[in-house]
Amino acid sequence: MLAAWIGNGRVELRGLPRPRPRKGEALIRVHCAGICNTDLELLAGYYGFRGVPGHEFVGTVVEGSPQWLGRRVAGEISLGCGRCPQCAAGMRRHCPRRRVLGILNHPGALAEFLVLPEENLHGIPRSVPDEEAVFCEPLAAACEILQQVRIPRAAPVAVLGDGKLGLLCAQVLAAAGAHVALFGRHPERSRWLARRGIRLQDGARRPSRAFPFVVEATGSAAGLEEALQFVAPRGTVVLKSTTHEPVRADLSRLVVVPEVTLVGSRCGPFPEALRLLRQRRVETAPLVQSRLTLAEVVEAFRQAAAPGALKVLVACPAPSSSTAR
Amino acid sequence: MLAAWIGNGRVELRGLPRPRPRKGEALIRVHCAGICNTDLELLAGYYGFRGVPGHEFVGTVVEGSPQWLGRRVAGEISLGCGRCPQCAAGMRRHCPRRRVLGILNHPGALAEFLVLPEENLHGIPRSVPDEEAVFCEPLAAACEILQQVRIPRAAPVAVLGDGKLGLLCAQVLAAAGAHVALFGRHPERSRWLARRGIRLQDGARRPSRAFPFVVEATGSAAGLEEALQFVAPRGTVVLKSTTHEPVRADLSRLVVVPEVTLVGSRCGPFPEALRLLRQRRVETAPLVQSRLTLAEVVEAFRQAAAPGALKVLVACPAPSSSTAR
Repeated sequence: MLAAWIGNGRVELRGLPRPRPRKGEALIRVHCAGICNTDLELLAGYYGFRGVPGHEFVGTVVEGSPQWLGRRVAGEISLGCGRCPQCAAGMRRHCPRRRVLGILNHPGALAEFLVLPEENLHGIPRSVPDEEAVFCEPLAAACEILQQVRIPRAAPVAVLGDGKLGLLCAQVLAAAGAHVALFGRHPERSRWLARRGIRLQDGARRPSRAFPFVVEATGSAAGLEEALQFVAPRGTVVLKSTTHEPVRADLSRLVVVPEVTLVGSRCGPFPEALRLLRQRRVETAPLVQSRLTLAEVVEAFRQAAAPGALKVLVACPAPSSSTAR
Repeated sequence: MLAAWIGNGRVELRGLPRPRPRKGEALIRVHCAGICNTDLELLAGYYGFRGVPGHEFVGTVVEGSPQWLGRRVAGEISLGCGRCPQCAAGMRRHCPRRRVLGILNHPGALAEFLVLPEENLHGIPRSVPDEEAVFCEPLAAACEILQQVRIPRAAPVAVLGDGKLGLLCAQVLAAAGAHVALFGRHPERSRWLARRGIRLQDGARRPSRAFPFVVEATGSAAGLEEALQFVAPRGTVVLKSTTHEPVRADLSRLVVVPEVTLVGSRCGPFPEALRLLRQRRVETAPLVQSRLTLAEVVEAFRQAAAPGALKVLVACPAPSSSTAR
């Protein structure tokens, strides 16, 4: 099959053996995959990654149990060991020996086919097209905020960063009734955001310690210290960015003295993301930067890495017989 | 009156005018004051401090309303503006224009007399002697942890740092029913800690990501990254240390990915601290390093700054008429 392959700081298109599902696993033909900032960081050397990247996808089960065969699915990205206390407690995302689709020891979704345990799969409602369903994984990550932090209706929330993740977080919070101010650099995004009840504000103007809740989605190591300038005493900052640089911040003055709470937040609930898509509470079309095919994946990474780029989608046409093995 | 005075990186004994209470304030004759790590950081240049340090004290009200006159008291250290939203919400500790006893724009307790608003005062029960009551402020800071984080009975809690604050935090948590492991460098403290149900463990041996709750009380900028090695996925780290160095840590790997919560924690509830002292649920005697008088305050700071030093108490004998003005 065709697949994107990352190694030695480069991404390339390769012909690779089709992965084989084991017991309890499904083989999925990928329809469409998204490129995430994490993929760009893998390319930059994060985790010393070598392999097939990609963890945002929608596809069809082509081998698996009768319950799943032929169904259109998205999938949770963590594969637990199944034996540790975290797995026993239903927290396979936190299994210390986990593999992660396209990130850690498990080939990813920027390929014609992928394999995942069936327990990771979620069926996609017919009303949600592929180009929306492919946002299920990052949208679930945005929904995770509301699983971790109780945000009262009409509470003022600042979201920092009007990139892909910030735009999803702002929409999820607005859909939950929060009064969201999104601080960013792209005023051209204000019109459609206003339609979702989100005020886009100039990220260069910093209101001092005004918000009880702040979501840091800047994608930059400097984002935490910025977020701490926004949050009110005893407020909460949700950290969504992963960066390979360490963070440096005056936590005594900015966290201990004002008694701020920081909440690290990563993957989230797919059913909640699918509900928001089905109910059309979240728009994904304005987040699509461009659409390419798997054969163009090198160009797709180039476009995704451009400053201010939004989501680059990679369509995977039905596999050609010459590359499938 | 006699008072300690910090400025230009030095501490000295000075003769200063006795402070004058305004409406709503009390004049307090200090019996005994404690030297805290914050005082050592003020001496080192934190906050660009110049003035009378000291914020841990017990004393007697010698001028004030009939309700307080003659009573033995401890006092909360933050003086709010009384007009901002934080003050209106009863959070004067977080008033942006607050003054803080012996720390920020208000002369401190390492003096024969101090002034505080009567609303800051708490009467000391007769059964609690001065040498225990002087621990009220740091003990309240330890109690703050339980106001911020719900820790179930018998939950495993790691406290990092067997210095003054760590020893108080460990005792407060053990008194609340937690299973406390205190990680430190002073095995000679293990016997009395065992009496309080606290296991003292070698701080050089790090159990990996095992504790659902971790309290960071090392007093070092490196403490946060250490604490993050102890905490289990989705666990909580309470940050108690204030340091003037910024913290540097890989928060992506250690907070975002394992979805850890960090809680900044500072001052706390005096009534709870007084209850623990009255009910003898906490021992303070093993925390006393030495006892000096105000006339010996330069030596007192020297002893407090020694590596591994515990609490240095400074007794303030009744004032001499020659220095009172």
